[in-house]
Amino acid sequence: MDEKQSVTGWFDSLLTGGRRQLGEALTLVETGGPTARKLLSRLSAMGGRAQIVGVTGPSGSGKSTLVNELALHFVSAGRRVGIVAVDPSSPFTGGAVLGDRVRMNRASSHADVFIRSAATRGCLGGVARATHDFVRVLDAVGYDPVIVETVGIGQSEVDIWRVAHTPVVVEAPGLGDAVQAMKAGVLEIASILCVNKADLPGTDAKLMQMRDLADEASTHTPGWKIPVVATVAQLGEGVPELAERILAHWRYLGTTDRMRQLKYERAMVEIRAGLQAEFVEAPLAKAARAGILARLATKVADQEMTPGDATRALEAEFLRPTDNSGDET
Amino acid sequence: MDEKQSVTGWFDSLLTGGRRQLGEALTLVETGGPTARKLLSRLSAMGGRAQIVGVTGPSGSGKSTLVNELALHFVSAGRRVGIVAVDPSSPFTGGAVLGDRVRMNRASSHADVFIRSAATRGCLGGVARATHDFVRVLDAVGYDPVIVETVGIGQSEVDIWRVAHTPVVVEAPGLGDAVQAMKAGVLEIASILCVNKADLPGTDAKLMQMRDLADEASTHTPGWKIPVVATVAQLGEGVPELAERILAHWRYLGTTDRMRQLKYERAMVEIRAGLQAEFVEAPLAKAARAGILARLATKVADQEMTPGDATRALEAEFLRPTDNSGDET
Repeated sequence: MDEKQSVTGWFDSLLTGGRRQLGEALTLVETGGPTARKLLSRLSAMGGRAQIVGVTGPSGSGKSTLVNELALHFVSAGRRVGIVAVDPSSPFTGGAVLGDRVRMNRASSHADVFIRSAATRGCLGGVARATHDFVRVLDAVGYDPVIVETVGIGQSEVDIWRVAHTPVVVEAPGLGDAVQAMKAGVLEIASILCVNKADLPGTDAKLMQMRDLADEASTHTPGWKIPVVATVAQLGEGVPELAERILAHWRYLGTTDRMRQLKYERAMVEIRAGLQAEFVEAPLAKAARAGILARLATKVADQEMTPGDATRALEAEFLRPTDNSGDET
Repeated sequence: MDEKQSVTGWFDSLLTGGRRQLGEALTLVETGGPTARKLLSRLSAMGGRAQIVGVTGPSGSGKSTLVNELALHFVSAGRRVGIVAVDPSSPFTGGAVLGDRVRMNRASSHADVFIRSAATRGCLGGVARATHDFVRVLDAVGYDPVIVETVGIGQSEVDIWRVAHTPVVVEAPGLGDAVQAMKAGVLEIASILCVNKADLPGTDAKLMQMRDLADEASTHTPGWKIPVVATVAQLGEGVPELAERILAHWRYLGTTDRMRQLKYERAMVEIRAGLQAEFVEAPLAKAARAGILARLATKVADQEMTPGDATRALEAEFLRPTDNSGDET
């Protein structure tokens, strides 16, 4: 099968196929390369319709359960829901979040919910780019909303979240300093705040704190008063209200210039993620597999080489145009 | 002046010159390019002797004042101290940290303290690479210790901090959830914990909390019991003890394999920072200056182009070998 036929094949199977074909297409896209790029080009004109909902919050906030219930609520209203769960490449928190995936089972067995994890650490494409591209594919084939769940650690994750149409922060009462995993400032740029586990002690204090923050942040969003929603995701409580606020935010965006601005900001973030994937993550992963990275690092550690020399060496080996092509067809 | 002569000129003026020459060399290194790379190569064999102390902590912890007092303490013991202050490229916290710089004045006027801020946002080289290279230069010309101060936000910042020989976390009593700016897990990989502003209410509770964390984390550092030091930096209280712990950690590292392992880990982090600087930050900055980035982002936002196409375009314009050379001499 030559390259061109292959892209058309992928395209057709995506449009006429089922979940298996979608899963395979996402794997293609995650891996990257010319076929993936062409497929994304073909899909591009079809996308841009879904509401992208970013959900972030510290571990322990119960956000996976909340995303699960939210998805089922949208499904009951006749929507098809895509979920992209970003497992952090951070060495600090991998385990806990992988555990969260298990708890998402209820929604994952539903025919109108498609869940994909952008998890593979060593993935050649970079997690951020994969996430953006997953959203593009799910959007193009008709999932709406597409919910992106992150733990809010690291710049690329925060970028993914903040350029969603509707960035939501999930908090919970009683999360101490030590488990506070979110970046500073994240709360201030959310469009919706949610206090989950709102049956725990400390809920009132947390709600009051969040409302103060929301009132302050709302001064920067004329026409949108940032709501604070209390939920108990495990019991489904407050989930319909949260869903309603999410849809209200979508209607609000439609009346403003913000939608256009967001598209532009998201484009910037995606372009950066593309460079990062192709010129940092991919060469490092390739060099690691070939055993070259360890050799270079040892030389740098032994002061036989500077890091700059090592960058040159990686460039020569993995970033020369001949090595990096594949666009001819 | 041809290229070769220039590198030798830089090298000689660094070794025989004073603070002005050092400042100019750091600016050269920050800008990047072939001369900077060659200068770093020349300096490479001379470095690797200084203890690199990483100091991180949320804003409000008073870490800049602490770094200031710490530097003066080391100076009084006959050392020359380098300080590299990393102003975050994060959009969230820039302002507050720039304010901190002002408070570092006491040390900055001392002849045996050299302070440099890795601050320039649009800098072509990338802040992380600049920071690593600043440390290399200061180390090579005899500053020891070199203290790197970060606010602990973003992966590249945490990377800088954690590959220091001695990563120190500064906390303070009464810092609430909302100002908690550090990444999860940072506390767990510190070699020394410090509770600054230890004259404020809540100090005992904070110390107890830190000691619990330190005890738990110490199980992973056989031979090193992670100390918790209480300081009141503004009054100089506890600073000699903190300095002693820092030196004790240096002696401890000398007795273990950890030193070698750290060199390797730091090499990995520096290689990544080099790719990031050269293939992400530099082309984005160049494209922004040329007005090309905004045009590409608009096309992506308008769905006339995919992010992948934009990456290709940036590659063609800014990452072709002809554009990227300068190594011939």
